[in-house]
Amino acid sequence: MALWLDQQSEGFERQFAAFLTTKREVSEDVNTVVRAIIDDVRLRGDAALAKYSKKFDGIDFATTPMRVSEAEIDAAVEAVPAEVLGALKVAAVRIESHHRRQLPKDDIYEDDMGVGLGSRWTAIEAVGLYVPGGTASYPSSVLMNAVPAKVAGVDRIVIAVPATGGAVNPAVLAAAKLAGVTEIYRIGGAQAIAALAYGTETIAPVAKITGPGNAYVAAAKRHVFGTVGIDMIAGPSEVLVIADKDNNPDWIAADLLAQAEHDAGAQSILMTDDAEFGRLVEAAVERQLKTLNRADTAAASWRDFGAVILVSNFKDAIPLANRIAPEHLELAVADPDALLDRVRNAGAIFVGAHTPEVIGDYIGGSNHVLPTARSARFSSGLSVLDFVKRTSILRLGPEQLRTLGPAAIALAVSEGLDAHARSVAIRLNLER
Amino acid sequence: MALWLDQQSEGFERQFAAFLTTKREVSEDVNTVVRAIIDDVRLRGDAALAKYSKKFDGIDFATTPMRVSEAEIDAAVEAVPAEVLGALKVAAVRIESHHRRQLPKDDIYEDDMGVGLGSRWTAIEAVGLYVPGGTASYPSSVLMNAVPAKVAGVDRIVIAVPATGGAVNPAVLAAAKLAGVTEIYRIGGAQAIAALAYGTETIAPVAKITGPGNAYVAAAKRHVFGTVGIDMIAGPSEVLVIADKDNNPDWIAADLLAQAEHDAGAQSILMTDDAEFGRLVEAAVERQLKTLNRADTAAASWRDFGAVILVSNFKDAIPLANRIAPEHLELAVADPDALLDRVRNAGAIFVGAHTPEVIGDYIGGSNHVLPTARSARFSSGLSVLDFVKRTSILRLGPEQLRTLGPAAIALAVSEGLDAHARSVAIRLNLER
Repeated sequence: MALWLDQQSEGFERQFAAFLTTKREVSEDVNTVVRAIIDDVRLRGDAALAKYSKKFDGIDFATTPMRVSEAEIDAAVEAVPAEVLGALKVAAVRIESHHRRQLPKDDIYEDDMGVGLGSRWTAIEAVGLYVPGGTASYPSSVLMNAVPAKVAGVDRIVIAVPATGGAVNPAVLAAAKLAGVTEIYRIGGAQAIAALAYGTETIAPVAKITGPGNAYVAAAKRHVFGTVGIDMIAGPSEVLVIADKDNNPDWIAADLLAQAEHDAGAQSILMTDDAEFGRLVEAAVERQLKTLNRADTAAASWRDFGAVILVSNFKDAIPLANRIAPEHLELAVADPDALLDRVRNAGAIFVGAHTPEVIGDYIGGSNHVLPTARSARFSSGLSVLDFVKRTSILRLGPEQLRTLGPAAIALAVSEGLDAHARSVAIRLNLER
Repeated sequence: MALWLDQQSEGFERQFAAFLTTKREVSEDVNTVVRAIIDDVRLRGDAALAKYSKKFDGIDFATTPMRVSEAEIDAAVEAVPAEVLGALKVAAVRIESHHRRQLPKDDIYEDDMGVGLGSRWTAIEAVGLYVPGGTASYPSSVLMNAVPAKVAGVDRIVIAVPATGGAVNPAVLAAAKLAGVTEIYRIGGAQAIAALAYGTETIAPVAKITGPGNAYVAAAKRHVFGTVGIDMIAGPSEVLVIADKDNNPDWIAADLLAQAEHDAGAQSILMTDDAEFGRLVEAAVERQLKTLNRADTAAASWRDFGAVILVSNFKDAIPLANRIAPEHLELAVADPDALLDRVRNAGAIFVGAHTPEVIGDYIGGSNHVLPTARSARFSSGLSVLDFVKRTSILRLGPEQLRTLGPAAIALAVSEGLDAHARSVAIRLNLER
């Protein structure tokens, strides 16, 4: 049974506010361990990587090379079933063509005073992509991180992936090859983040690290932030499905479970104006749960964080949706366009009943790395913009400096910055 | 005496690499204190704010209201000298017109398969801008943070500024008014960051916090990151001036000192191909230092972190500049355009000898909040993009789902995600 909230009931506002602040993650305090690992990798480089990889992943770099060879990657491509490889190719092409539209344009211009101004975009030179090991080692995530980096024009795209016992998921290697990844290392955890940020004898440092990971990886990313750039610290996934009673309850139940099966901390929310439909969906969830390979995870997520929110009408639902600021928002209603424009906070919106969120996970072309835990209020999904940076350009001649200089001097003086004032005044032969 | 490095000398590479990693900040470990303050503000709201403001800023909210009134703001505008107010107005207009060009455009389209895809940009609903107190309380920084937020369409722009003894710099209030700030609170330090992030009885929470601050403010921003967005954690400022011998050494010296006077940890670097010119600039620095009100700060910065790098020629200088990735780069050479296109990593570039960096600090129109400490390798200066976020939109009809669905199912199955596969299969009447 999921939590039920009714917009028309007394106490709804209080309950909804509490619901919004529910914590879905255990925040393990791993900082001490992580800091020690990072310091060790900075100090001892490859030797430290070897030590931790042996300890945590059971892999010996004396017998298995840290870097995955071209031959191994090619063999992996061969080993991936044709259907999966074909699907990865379709996905890569669609992701690339969508992300190509995100490439920002330089804007270099002269204003009416003759001052040259400009914004110039350049690609980050090298990025590291963390890929988790084990069951969360998703080839789709490799595409979602590496393709935008490639489109941006990043020169070096480096993957770190822990390989328990030496094996890396062949589909991950195939996706990496398709996406144009340049280097792949069998390393994981905080030690991998440290190696990417600071470099070792084998691994040249990168300038930015993206990709999901466990608590150790997240803490390490937070720690190296500043030395390198990082993407968001992703939390458990969530979906908000706004659905009217004309939907097939089984479709909606499947969508809720697709989110729930990711993680026991994932959150699936149904918002509907029809209590009976809500009950039908809930029953369908219970029924479908039984046949899932990850039933335990999905059941825990639905039980602990699942919710059905009964709204007075769909117009009133949107302000609530904006407060939830869901990572994924499905609009499975007869007239989704009536709601679409009023949604302000959401990572991605899936319009109409024939757009299950899963299409966005794999094949739609948009990115599946999206802001979780209400961070869509202030941040965006991964895009080409995450792999470029902008340089401002300013160009004055003597005439423009004469026109603008006095105002700069006035402000510098008012801020008590003598040398600032002089740097302008001296060029205008003014006393300062 | 600044450090001298000569590109043609033996050992240059080693010296330059060490120079790049010089730490210019004492990283005080203030985390324990900061965490306690944040927890207290979360728990006790206004009462905690009152306690810390009394303790750290000597201000009593029983007699001075926490929020700065409209009347007080209007009085401040009157109190600011006409010349300064006029300069602030010119700056605000120029910043606004430059930043308006940064507003991203929505991109909603249908691909050749009939799949609807889109990127839609919306403004963050509420942002907080931290303004330091004391001598670092710069009205120019208020404009640089608040104007882009206003251009982005942010509804609530909230300033937190510590007011030692109750007084806020009138020029800061005037700049806030010009920029369209909606609320100003007399609070500072970690407690102000906590109040902005979590809200109190008086202050509604914001979704993102920008602006510079001391070690406590920086640690608090790092701590609340995730709950709200934050801008970069800014370090001490730096400038790299690439100058040929045809420059007036006094102009270049003034530019180096304009950076050095900010902070003892600031860094000013001259790169030239002429040792004699380098010595002339150095002599001019020593001469000009004597007359600065902030001579002690500037002298310490120049002594500890200043550098003259002698290059073989200016073409060879650019790869070094890209490794330094300076916040500010001046190209004071006869043909700056020959170098401009090869610069990849820099926060802002100032082209030609008549564009001192100080113009960018105040009046050029571009933003003066720029990536420090080599972070221009992976990040950009503040812009309108920092105050908006992007929502992806995906829209399939039955036909598109039939075309793309099987590939999504194949990938879901290969990743072991049953419910993902079912969410698509069930809509296509496929067994799953």
